[in-house]
This record gives sequence, structure tokens and C-alpha cells, in this order.
Amino acid sequence: MIITLKKEAPQSEVDRLYNDFEEKGVHVNIIQGDNFNVFGLVGDTSQISDRDILANEWVENVQRVSAPYKLSNRMFHPEDTIVDVAGIKVGGNEKIVIIGGPCSVEGSEQICRIAEEVKDCGADMIRGGAYKPRTSPYSFQGLGYQGLLDMVEAREKTGMPIVSEVMSADKVDEFVEHVDLVQIGARNMQNFDLLRAVGHINKPVLLKRGMSATIEDWIMSAEYIMAAGNPNVIMCERGIRTFEKYTRNTMDLAVIPIIKEKTHLPIIIDPSHATGDWKLIEPMSLAAIAAGADGLIIEVHDCPDKAWSDGAQALKPEKFKELIRKGKIVAEAVGRSL
Amino acid sequence: MIITLKKEAPQSEVDRLYNDFEEKGVHVNIIQGDNFNVFGLVGDTSQISDRDILANEWVENVQRVSAPYKLSNRMFHPEDTIVDVAGIKVGGNEKIVIIGGPCSVEGSEQICRIAEEVKDCGADMIRGGAYKPRTSPYSFQGLGYQGLLDMVEAREKTGMPIVSEVMSADKVDEFVEHVDLVQIGARNMQNFDLLRAVGHINKPVLLKRGMSATIEDWIMSAEYIMAAGNPNVIMCERGIRTFEKYTRNTMDLAVIPIIKEKTHLPIIIDPSHATGDWKLIEPMSLAAIAAGADGLIIEVHDCPDKAWSDGAQALKPEKFKELIRKGKIVAEAVGRSL
Amino acid sequence: MIITLKKEAPQSEVDRLYNDFEEKGVHVNIIQGDNFNVFGLVGDTSQISDRDILANEWVENVQRVSAPYKLSNRMFHPEDTIVDVAGIKVGGNEKIVIIGGPCSVEGSEQICRIAEEVKDCGADMIRGGAYKPRTSPYSFQGLGYQGLLDMVEAREKTGMPIVSEVMSADKVDEFVEHVDLVQIGARNMQNFDLLRAVGHINKPVLLKRGMSATIEDWIMSAEYIMAAGNPNVIMCERGIRTFEKYTRNTMDLAVIPIIKEKTHLPIIIDPSHATGDWKLIEPMSLAAIAAGADGLIIEVHDCPDKAWSDGAQALKPEKFKELIRKGKIVAEAVGRSL
Amino acid sequence: MIITLKKEAPQSEVDRLYNDFEEKGVHVNIIQGDNFNVFGLVGDTSQISDRDILANEWVENVQRVSAPYKLSNRMFHPEDTIVDVAGIKVGGNEKIVIIGGPCSVEGSEQICRIAEEVKDCGADMIRGGAYKPRTSPYSFQGLGYQGLLDMVEAREKTGMPIVSEVMSADKVDEFVEHVDLVQIGARNMQNFDLLRAVGHINKPVLLKRGMSATIEDWIMSAEYIMAAGNPNVIMCERGIRTFEKYTRNTMDLAVIPIIKEKTHLPIIIDPSHATGDWKLIEPMSLAAIAAGADGLIIEVHDCPDKAWSDGAQALKPEKFKELIRKGKIVAEAVGRSL
Repeated sequence: MIITLKKEAPQSEVDRLYNDFEEKGVHVNIIQGDNFNVFGLVGDTSQISDRDILANEWVENVQRVSAPYKLSNRMFHPEDTIVDVAGIKVGGNEKIVIIGGPCSVEGSEQICRIAEEVKDCGADMIRGGAYKPRTSPYSFQGLGYQGLLDMVEAREKTGMPIVSEVMSADKVDEFVEHVDLVQIGARNMQNFDLLRAVGHINKPVLLKRGMSATIEDWIMSAEYIMAAGNPNVIMCERGIRTFEKYTRNTMDLAVIPIIKEKTHLPIIIDPSHATGDWKLIEPMSLAAIAAGADGLIIEVHDCPDKAWSDGAQALKPEKFKELIRKGKIVAEAVGRSL
Repeated sequence: MIITLKKEAPQSEVDRLYNDFEEKGVHVNIIQGDNFNVFGLVGDTSQISDRDILANEWVENVQRVSAPYKLSNRMFHPEDTIVDVAGIKVGGNEKIVIIGGPCSVEGSEQICRIAEEVKDCGADMIRGGAYKPRTSPYSFQGLGYQGLLDMVEAREKTGMPIVSEVMSADKVDEFVEHVDLVQIGARNMQNFDLLRAVGHINKPVLLKRGMSATIEDWIMSAEYIMAAGNPNVIMCERGIRTFEKYTRNTMDLAVIPIIKEKTHLPIIIDPSHATGDWKLIEPMSLAAIAAGADGLIIEVHDCPDKAWSDGAQALKPEKFKELIRKGKIVAEAVGRSL
Repeated sequence: MIITLKKEAPQSEVDRLYNDFEEKGVHVNIIQGDNFNVFGLVGDTSQISDRDILANEWVENVQRVSAPYKLSNRMFHPEDTIVDVAGIKVGGNEKIVIIGGPCSVEGSEQICRIAEEVKDCGADMIRGGAYKPRTSPYSFQGLGYQGLLDMVEAREKTGMPIVSEVMSADKVDEFVEHVDLVQIGARNMQNFDLLRAVGHINKPVLLKRGMSATIEDWIMSAEYIMAAGNPNVIMCERGIRTFEKYTRNTMDLAVIPIIKEKTHLPIIIDPSHATGDWKLIEPMSLAAIAAGADGLIIEVHDCPDKAWSDGAQALKPEKFKELIRKGKIVAEAVGRSL
Repeated sequence: MIITLKKEAPQSEVDRLYNDFEEKGVHVNIIQGDNFNVFGLVGDTSQISDRDILANEWVENVQRVSAPYKLSNRMFHPEDTIVDVAGIKVGGNEKIVIIGGPCSVEGSEQICRIAEEVKDCGADMIRGGAYKPRTSPYSFQGLGYQGLLDMVEAREKTGMPIVSEVMSADKVDEFVEHVDLVQIGARNMQNFDLLRAVGHINKPVLLKRGMSATIEDWIMSAEYIMAAGNPNVIMCERGIRTFEKYTRNTMDLAVIPIIKEKTHLPIIIDPSHATGDWKLIEPMSLAAIAAGADGLIIEVHDCPDKAWSDGAQALKPEKFKELIRKGKIVAEAVGRSL
């Protein structure tokens, strides 16, 4: 940690700060600059908050040298984490996984029908929302627990693992019982109580990036889950909020190599939410594969304009099948399979 | 609702869409344009999702004419809502309220001491965090329930109402019992289960804007609380996330007149989080008052660089007192008192 | 164009507006809604500014139905524009072009040496900055005219066309004489005098997206060049400014299918500026190819940490060669060649 | 400057870097950390580009300690710069200046009429655009040189100095001859040739912030003008581009105290462009005054919905007058006059 002090800081204040840090067990190196003095702290600074040091009026700024995350940090765990989702491996050099299904479960018949279709297209897992985070209280809020049971039926019929979003800690038990991959949605990426709750379970977690989360914020949320005891975290990019209006969000594919460099966790991409537009899903999916993604999660509906939510970003099964066909070729081009 | 259809849409599709809307009880006006045809929908379109219509490949775009919020909408409730917080009125032309206190409760002695100080400075309520949303799992997470009890003690000693943040639905009962104004933090602005939970209580709610929430998203979150039965919502701007790095967030003061135009709810400003820098709190507070804010919530600590969290954005009591002195003068200049 | 009027607008005002529009030769359709009245304008509304109509206090909002661009609009020119750069074709289903070279020309020897290297790696054109837009007045500002002459020498030695950025209208003649593809940089994307100036020349133009330009702003800048008489515009994405700090900019690959849908112009990608980090260039280049890019422009330097500018985002020749090797395979996977 | 090196960097590379820096005349302090080694550079590092050092693959990151600007830096010039615009002083504790007038000059009669009106309201200077930067090539582009002459006539009739925007270096002479305060618009904030050109003149410059410029970028553009020889720069905030859609831009008032802390230059605020909505101009103007602005530049038109450009953000004279009346009271409340 590097602390820049104003040149006019009184010596007594410099001494007090120096002693404070040394008492906390970190060693302070002082560099006398022309316009500033600099403290270089060596040792375990993870307990020291940069924002508390900034409270000192003689401090100009504070910069971390080491990343604030440990368990997820590639530096301390060089090998890839491969997450097992009911037998399907995600990450490393494993086959790229394809997760398909509707935004919302609309009933047993619908989810089973679409599950069969996405399986025929070549998908590995089914997605479907039972509890739905909707901007408006007047929109359809999901079928709730019954929706989860409908998904279980779809799993029984197709043999594919199921992925669904949990929205509150008091529902985590339902998900542990029924769901194979527990999703934390973008809006709950910093719902820390929920992160801790899924940190205590033995099911893998799909952690979506918050719509204005920096990469570091996002990794810190993975760190919450891991610090609570659950090492099986899959990162999921779903676009960030920017000024651009033609797309619902801006898909940030640079996160793929960055997450792989900074952490040892798998990363998958959600081009449906990242773009909000079914016409963009195929090219963005191929781009994600080319950039090294470990998987894709895509909304699929056989009648998007009758979907109970978000039809605009769902592919019809025939287009999903075509995407998978092309995806296989691109995957091979970059040395992966799909 | 205005729907733009591609000129090449087949007549059968146009007819089908037309009939679908008429069946939903809305009347469709058709305008034949040069390059597009336009459907103008008249009637209650609140059940129709623009994103589902967009799923139709012949639809170019969809635009709402009416706002998607009702209970919070100034159009249907022209009078100002004045929220009563344990006897202190917020909104309308009432006195501008000042809420001060530390980021985190650090113990009974600390919160009582600072509460006395902020009261002496002229504050109306005490703030303090018992449950703390922290980016890092390794940072201090708050004293929890004990922190709430410490705040109760501070209220007993000073007579001032207390404000604190609730982070999960299962703790709402604690807040109903002990806290006067229940805060929903920025990171939980779209934690819809929590919004519904505080919609069922009879305590007023302070709803912070999410760091990347549009004004419409934010109003929709207020609508969640109101639709669940709680009309006592106070909006709170705390800065939005932008590319600028000198400040922690970018304070968006235009929300003050906009919230007052679009809704009938009170709005207060949090310059501590909006800037992240104690040096900027005074000028930004005066600006907020001049722009018509109904209140300010400011972090105050008597020893910021020893604070257990976020000292960088806390004022020392003497600076807080000076801010209130100047704030009174600016408030009078714009026809309010403080 | 759709204009929403407040219900309480006086009839005289409604009549006045109606007559104003009819006088301008557009036909007005009126839809009486519950809370608003709507004017649907049919005819040529390109001369009517939405912001001027908004000045009327009875107008709630104004929405365009048709895009404000014409010459670049795919709707009116369904075929792909293929731009010829000194014999190399860009766009359509032509071979994907690769442009490589240093950020700055550092002298004849350097640019000729690097040009030979990028040619050996398989590039199609050489890039190099003679006039450099630098954030600081104290940074190296480019060799100017001599730098252009050095590039000409590199062209003579390698036979490859040259690409360089023009920063002001009074230098356009130099570029017409010496350069094959004239670049407008991100910072000058809305330097309208410069756009008009390159609209009058007979050399193709590479138009970079401004760092906070919406896709529509960017297309409108292409429209400036085309309206002045130059149809040979190549669009170039180079990342947009967002809150994310790990990368210099956020690369927005969704623009590739969007530009191809909305316009008939070719689009190439600059992963060097989009990421600011040489380690990210290869995966982002492969992603761009998979998403359908017509070309790549990449900074290459044989000694990046001695480069006179922006070494952090330059590839060494051996890495550039490897990128082209992999790029060929991905290009084939999506039905293109490179 | 602080350089973080990977622990695994070979000693030969560390030595080479060390020697490179020492040769450039800066002294290197080395701190051996647990996970990284750190170089602390002392001396004049303004010639060293952080992005070039980052090109070295063993470098993890680079951080500046001192600001990259000098002439504008408050640290080296503690006293406020007060800029004289044809006798009107801007900055320090001088009277807050009010600049009013139409977006575009629409002819001699119009600008003279509005100039008289804004003078009657209490304004100090007239603004008006002769050369207009318009997003669309099909929008009115301004009257050009004739527009400047019309403004000169308005100055002669009212005695008020005139402010207008210059868009290209080849027109700077016209502005030196006729205009009192030469404006650089947001879109040209990094048109470095234009910055240099106005750096050579003896008229004061009003430098608008680019719509995605960080505060540091903006100060660096002022530094360009000052480094070329013109010390008379007035900063002007006009809103930044964010995800929010209710306003045209997001007005960032925290820049007022920040510019005053980091630099010695005056700063004025443009609430017309910052909000894009005439209804928001008054509250945002009062906020700017309360936060310490040295002036306001506001669009005023006597018939906004007939304005040739941007009527939506223009005040009618009677509202402008009322704003000035209220502004005076707020100015007094914060110890300034207006």
C-alpha cells in the first residue's frame, strides 16, 4: 500500500501515522519526494482500509499494490478451478457449456417442451426463472416455488441440470434441494447477506456481474461466497450500463481474459441480457467463444412474442440450434470443444 | 404506447398484432408513415411489456407515452407527500431536515457521544450503520443487532429519531421495533424481496438511489414499496457511478426538481456518499439546499481517521456545525428553513 | 415523429402547433389518449428538430420514428459499401484486412523496419501517427510532416498502403497527397469542420468512434463526410469510456452487427485503444473477427517499452504474427478469409 | 511516480529499468514487498509516460504521485487567477458573472433584441453561436462570420462583452478581432490544434469540459492553452454523459470545489447544456452559485419554440430575470455578490 502525504504535513502527524502502521504489524518505508512524501507499507495490509487513511487531512491519496482478494486470486492459486455442475464440468479446458431456456418458467408444460427443444439443439443445461426480479411491481413476478418444481420435472424428462436465480436468503434451502446451479442475479451481486447464504451451501453458484460493478467489485463478491466456504463459483458477464442506447447494456468481453488472469474461476457469458436484442445474440456468442469463454447462457423461447417476460432477447430454437452449430466451429478454431 | 412497425411487415402479422391489442382492451390507432407504420395504443397499457412486443421481428421499436408508475406519480396525486418520522416532518415546505452521525455504530459510548455532538450542532436525526454492506468480506461488517440497541440508547439520550440501514428481509422486524426511519441502501435498491418487505411495515422508508439506477428505475423501486402498502417513502440521492475518478460517485442534483415534478415524494441528499470526500461535503450540501432538497444525510465522526469505516467522507463535528450555520442562510435565501 | 402533448394544453396551442407542422409540409395524425394527446407526423421530418419542439411547455416528449441519417442508412442503400484503399478492398465479404504498425512514427528507420516486420507477419496496411493527439502538452506530439514522408518511404519499401491520422483541416492536403487511408481520431469525431474537409477529398476515411459517442452520433459523423461528397467511409470502434478501470476503455463489439444492420459501411476494430493492454489484444481480436469485423487495426512495435508513445498497448511482432495465424482460423470458422 | 514490479521479474530486468530511470535524472527508491517490488521515483517525472512503462511485461502497474499539470496547478500558483473579459473580472471573490443569450445568432435584429432583454434582466455578457457544432449535417449550422458581426452590433448597442464559440484554428483571427471571450466547445476540448491556436492569442478563453472528459483531462486541456502562452482560461462545466436519460447530460457540480482546489482558474457553469431542459435551469443555477461558481452561462430566447436551435434548453427573458433575482439572494448567502 502506497500513501502519499502532503509535504506540509507536520512532523508530529507523520510520526503518529508511522507509529500507527508499525503497531498494526506492517513495515513503513519512507520516500522523500519533491512535492510529497510517500509511505510504502510492506506486510499484510488487507485489514487496512484505504478510505480510513484518506480521512486524514494530510493524506493526498492512497493506492493499493496488492489486490484485495485472496481466495479467488490467481496469484495464490495458479491452477484453474473446474466447477462440477451435476456432472458437467465448467472451466479449464473442458468443453464449453451451453445453457438455454426461457427467461421465465410459465408452467410445467412450457418448460418441459422448451427443455426438450434446447436439448435437441445441443444444450447442456436448462435455465428458467421461477423467482423473477422485475423493475415494475406490476409485471409478472414468476411462479415461485411451483416454478422450481416445474424445472425439476424438466430435468427429469431431459436429464439436464437446471439453473435458476435465487433472490433472497430465506429461499436458499429450496434451491439447495432442487436446483443444480444457483444463480445470483446482477441486481443482487452486492446483496451481501445473500452472498454469505450461498457461501454456506454445497451447490455451485453462478455469479452475475452487477450492472455497474467494476471487475474488482465483482471478484470481491465471489470472494464473499468463497470466504463463507463455497469454492464453486462461476462468474457470468451480462453487460454493463453505459450511455449507449441501441443496446440494453454494453457487453464487456475483455472480462474473459481479465478474469482468467486475475482469478482461477470459470467465466461464462450471457449475450441475451448483455445486448437485450435477439438479433445480436449469435454474433456476440461467437465473439465470446473466440475470446475464451467457458460457456454461454442464452434465453430461448419457442414463441418469444408470447413470452411472459423479456421475449425481445430470446432466440427461437431453430436460431439457437444454428448458433450452436456455428459455435462448435469457432470453438475448434480456438482449441476448445462445444 | 407507440409501436413502430416495419413497412414490409406482412398484413397478416399487422392484423394479428392489432387483434391482440384490441383483445387486451386497448384501442389501436394506425398511422401510415412513409417508411414505417405506427400503432398508437390508447387505454390501460400498464400490463403490456414493451420488451415482449419488441420480440416480434416486424417491430422496429416501442415507446411508452405514460410513465410506468402510478402511486408515486405526481400526475395522479398532485399534492406533496409529507412523511412523518417520529414527529419530524419531511417534505413539502417543512423545515429541511438534517441527519448526522457516523458511518458505523462502533459501540454504545461512541454513538451516544457523537449523537450528542450532532444534536448540539443542530441536527434533527441520528444516522448510524449496524448492518454494513461492505465490498470486502474482510472489512468490518457492523455490530449487527447490538448496534441497533446502541442506537436506541443514543435516541433515549438525545431524543432524536434514528435512521439505520436494513440489509435483508429477515431483519425487518428488528427495524420495525427499534428504528424510526428504515434505510434501503443503494446496493439493495433492486432487492425486490426487501422492497416488498418494507412495503408491509408501518415505518417510513429512506430509499437510496442505486449507483447505476436511472431515475425511472428508482421511482419504480419506490412504487414497489408503495404498491405493497407503505406510502411513506423518502427518496435519497447518493451519487451515481460514472467515468470520473476524482470523486467516489457523481452527485446528480438535477434529481431534486425532477423527483418533485414526476412524483409527490420528499427527496433528501447524501453528499458523503455522493462525493466520498469530506472536503466536498459543505459546498455540495449548500448546492443541494439551493436546488430544493428536503433534507441532508451526512456522515459525522469526531475522529474520522480512527473511524471503523469510511472516515474519508465524514465531517468532524465543528465542520458539521459550520455547514448547518451556512445551510440555514442558504435555506432562507430559497424560502425554506433549516 | 411522435409528439406527446400534455392533456391540459389549451386548444389554441394545439391548433397552433398543428398548423405549424402542416405548413412545413408534414401531415399530422392526432390520437386522443387518456392522459396525453399524441401527434403522429407523417412526411419528411428531417428538417424538424425534436429539441425545438420540446421547448414548447405543453410538449411532454418527442420521439423520432425514422433514423436521422440517410446516405449511410441501410434502409435506402441495401447493398454493402466496399471501400477501396489503394487496391485493397474493405467490407462486404472481402478478405478481412489487418493494419499494423507503431502508435507514432519515430523516424524513417523505425517505421521502415516495423513496416517490413508487420508485412512479414501478414498485415495488409501500415499504420503510424505523424500528428499525435496527446492528453498532455508535455508529451511527444509526433514528427509532423516529416513523419508522413517517413511513412511514404515505408510504403515504397513494402508496397503496403499507409494509414495515418489527420488532426486539422489545414493539413488535409498533405494527407490527400501522401496517405492512402485518412484517419479521423476519436477526439475529433465531432470536429465538424474537419469532417467536412475530409468529405471533400477523394481518399477513403477511417472514422473512429468518439469515446462517449452513441452509435447514432457516430453514424451522424459518417453522414457529415458523406453529405459533403465522400462516400468512402470505414467505421472504426476503439472502445468507449465507462466506469471500469482495469481496461483503458470498454470495447463494444455489439457495434459490429449494429453498424452492419443500420448502415451499409464497413467496420473495423481497434483492440489496442479499446483495451489499452497488449495482453488483451489477441483474445479481443479473435472476438472481433468472430463477430463479423471487416478488419483490425493493431499497434505493433518491436520494442514497446522504448516506444515514444503508448507502448502498453502495442504487440511485439512475434505476438502479432501469432494473432494473425489464429485470426485466419477463426475467420474461416465464420466464413471469411484473412 | 510509483512503479509496481512483479516479484518474478528477473534481476537483470530490474537493473535495466533502474538504470534507465537514473539516466533520465530521477532517483529510484526500491521497496521490497511480499508479493511485489516497488520503485518510488523522485525527481522530475513529467517526461516519463506511465503508459510506456506499462509496456514492460514485468510491470504490474504505474501510479503518478504528482499531478501532470503545472501551469494550472494550485500547488505552484496559490493565488486565484482573475480573468479580465473586456473589463469584467471573473474569478476570485469578484462578482459572479451572468452570461445570457440565444444558442444561435439568427440575425442582427434577433441578437440585438435579445441582448437588450438579457441586459435589462441584469446579465453581464451576451452569448450567441455564429459557428454551430451540430450532430446532424442537415441541421442549421450557424450564420458564420455574419453572425459574429451581428454580435458585434449587439455589443455596440448594449455595451456588454460578447462570448462565442470558435470551431477551427483557421477562424481564430476572426474571433481575436471581434469577440471578447473565445469559447472552446465540449466537442473540441481535445482538439489540440485548436487549443494551441487559442493559446497564442491575447483574448481570454472559455474552456468547456468534454462530455466524457475526466477532470484531469479537462485541466490538461487548459494546460495546453496556458503552455502555449495564454494564461487567461476560464473553465466551464456543461454536464457529462452518463446512463441517465431524463436529462441531456448529468451536471457535475463537485467540479466547482475540485477545480478551485487543484487549480487557480475561475469556473463557471452552463446549466442549459448540463440539463437540456429549461425547467431545470433555475434550481441548477442556484445550486451552482451555492457551491461557489464564479459565473453562469445560460441560454435565453424570447421565443424558444421558434429558436433555430436548442429551444428546449433556453429560458424566456422573464424567467431569466427571476433567476437572477433569486441568484442574488443565494450569492449573498454564500458571501458573494451577483
